[in-house]
Amino acid sequence: MPRKLKIKIKMTKKPKPKPDQNNLGFGRFFTDHMFIMDYLGEKGWRKPRIVPYEPIKLDPGASVLHYGQETFEGLKAYRSGDGRILIFRPRKNIERLNRSNERMCIPEIDPDFELEALKALIKLEKDWIPTAPGTALYIRPFVIAAEPFLGVRAAKTYYFIIILSPVGSYYPQGINPIRIYVESKYVRAVKGGTGYAKAGGNYAAGLKAQQEAAQKGYVQVLWLDGIEHKYIEEVGAMNVFFKIKGKVVTPPLEGTILPGVTRDSIIQILKQEEIDIAERRISIQELSEAYEKGELEEAFGTGTAAVISPIGELNWQDRNMVINNNKIGPLSQKLYDTITGIQTGRIKDPYGWIVEVT
Amino acid sequence: MPRKLKIKIKMTKKPKPKPDQNNLGFGRFFTDHMFIMDYLGEKGWRKPRIVPYEPIKLDPGASVLHYGQETFEGLKAYRSGDGRILIFRPRKNIERLNRSNERMCIPEIDPDFELEALKALIKLEKDWIPTAPGTALYIRPFVIAAEPFLGVRAAKTYYFIIILSPVGSYYPQGINPIRIYVESKYVRAVKGGTGYAKAGGNYAAGLKAQQEAAQKGYVQVLWLDGIEHKYIEEVGAMNVFFKIKGKVVTPPLEGTILPGVTRDSIIQILKQEEIDIAERRISIQELSEAYEKGELEEAFGTGTAAVISPIGELNWQDRNMVINNNKIGPLSQKLYDTITGIQTGRIKDPYGWIVEVT
Repeated sequence: MPRKLKIKIKMTKKPKPKPDQNNLGFGRFFTDHMFIMDYLGEKGWRKPRIVPYEPIKLDPGASVLHYGQETFEGLKAYRSGDGRILIFRPRKNIERLNRSNERMCIPEIDPDFELEALKALIKLEKDWIPTAPGTALYIRPFVIAAEPFLGVRAAKTYYFIIILSPVGSYYPQGINPIRIYVESKYVRAVKGGTGYAKAGGNYAAGLKAQQEAAQKGYVQVLWLDGIEHKYIEEVGAMNVFFKIKGKVVTPPLEGTILPGVTRDSIIQILKQEEIDIAERRISIQELSEAYEKGELEEAFGTGTAAVISPIGELNWQDRNMVINNNKIGPLSQKLYDTITGIQTGRIKDPYGWIVEVT
Repeated sequence: MPRKLKIKIKMTKKPKPKPDQNNLGFGRFFTDHMFIMDYLGEKGWRKPRIVPYEPIKLDPGASVLHYGQETFEGLKAYRSGDGRILIFRPRKNIERLNRSNERMCIPEIDPDFELEALKALIKLEKDWIPTAPGTALYIRPFVIAAEPFLGVRAAKTYYFIIILSPVGSYYPQGINPIRIYVESKYVRAVKGGTGYAKAGGNYAAGLKAQQEAAQKGYVQVLWLDGIEHKYIEEVGAMNVFFKIKGKVVTPPLEGTILPGVTRDSIIQILKQEEIDIAERRISIQELSEAYEKGELEEAFGTGTAAVISPIGELNWQDRNMVINNNKIGPLSQKLYDTITGIQTGRIKDPYGWIVEVT
């Protein structure tokens, strides 16, 4: 992207009423405007614009509708107590989108320009950033293949779009512990596949397991590796951490799980706090044995949407492990407080994670 | 779908010129009309209609654009020498779409009604069915999740759409042998995943391998199993058959490969012709050894788009196997003639595969 792109802005004539901050749910409300940019083969990315939030018109033959050539990101902006607009580690998400794009044969997006677009849109929609505790403005950049062509190959045209959604808790239960079902039948990803990319197909592939777990009374599934059904991968759409005998462990990034931004932040905080943290393979057997010995002290999922989600119960092959008496553990609570404190500006950010929109 | 649905028809006011039958390519041209039907939560499938082919309007938050909840089918209609309109085994595709839907948490579609919709649309677009040798009217039914909601769960609203495309050969080289690269790095599917479903994410996941193979001069990749990288699965988006010492072998349906309609038809024809056919695991090592001994006589891919695609060269770990001197083998040719003969009505259909649109 050698030439400098300029964002055109077309304002809505029908601003929507803002939703009730105490009943936002997750991803149900969208703001008045969106960012959109076209990719047209050799012409590259062009025509960046902010326009009223409106339906996208796609040719029925557009490849995103058939072959799932699509990537996305999720990050959050917050309004601090003193009124500043803070985005949490946007460059990490921007870099990851390009890594996902590379895997899915989607053209790269200039990181500096993407950050500029993010900021411009958030600034315009600043009145949509909720301020109630536990709320945020969720930012959803995504790329879709638009070329109407039914042969199977990478498309030649794309849209890059950013939409914004004021959100509350991802789970209706908030930061309360969730019940997790260890999945032994379905597989999310395998080495050589797309597990590390934030690509639509990974999520579609996981719906069935989630649905069946929900019928059994569980909120999410814990994925095991696709080869041996032995090693823990991630939980639902979150990374997962366990505290065993005072030491924290999380599965390593080996191509099958998402390299979460919250995951990375938690690891940095733990190191800073001098709490033992290992990125290593952990089998469900090892976890179960630690539980039997009374050494499994805490378990939690991490992700942008839910931030920290304590795991209260884990069901593996009809055995039920109740962790920390189904209560939020002290480490989970401390990490949640630290990370949301930094995100919302309540706590000083010693890591350089916060980008302010001015 | 207890109540009887009635298809409303709205005719285009701007019929398009028909494309040159000798330069159709694959999936580049679309007819004047399309079928569309909505799914609205508890109300089920409703409002089936044939409308002018036009862009679909999707909310930018529609889940198909983020989480790839989408399924599709591909089948063909032909114009016989005596002017009849013939569809090849549509019920097989309709059943498979529902199996894909089940895997992807998409509501089932009534098979009888789907066939009625297919026929109604084809009948209306009958002048679009090309008649030149090797051409057909490609039929693309697909389902997309339309609900604007960013939480990860199955959507509550969908569109079921059918579009039609007059097509020539899938590969520019027509029925000429193609060069195939045996993929050892990327994986298409693994047991417990979505390999058997015709779901967008499977295709998006394969693009990268195809692109890298193309850079090396190969048209498609041959996928190996995702666990051991040992057993042959399928080639590009086709099933694969090998003739070794007079016997035909094709990988079995174990959940990771697509249960192809052409695959099934080829197996039935081989049985009818009393040619030895085995559905069993075959390793790339076994294939290579058969080649070394001069026993690998023919190899071909099968699929609706390309029907039969002879494999002329197979590259595995820098070894190049040239099959049947890079020429179409007699069995491949005979199967191609038989199946396309039945499809176009040149040969009597002893299998009950042909459904006529009257």
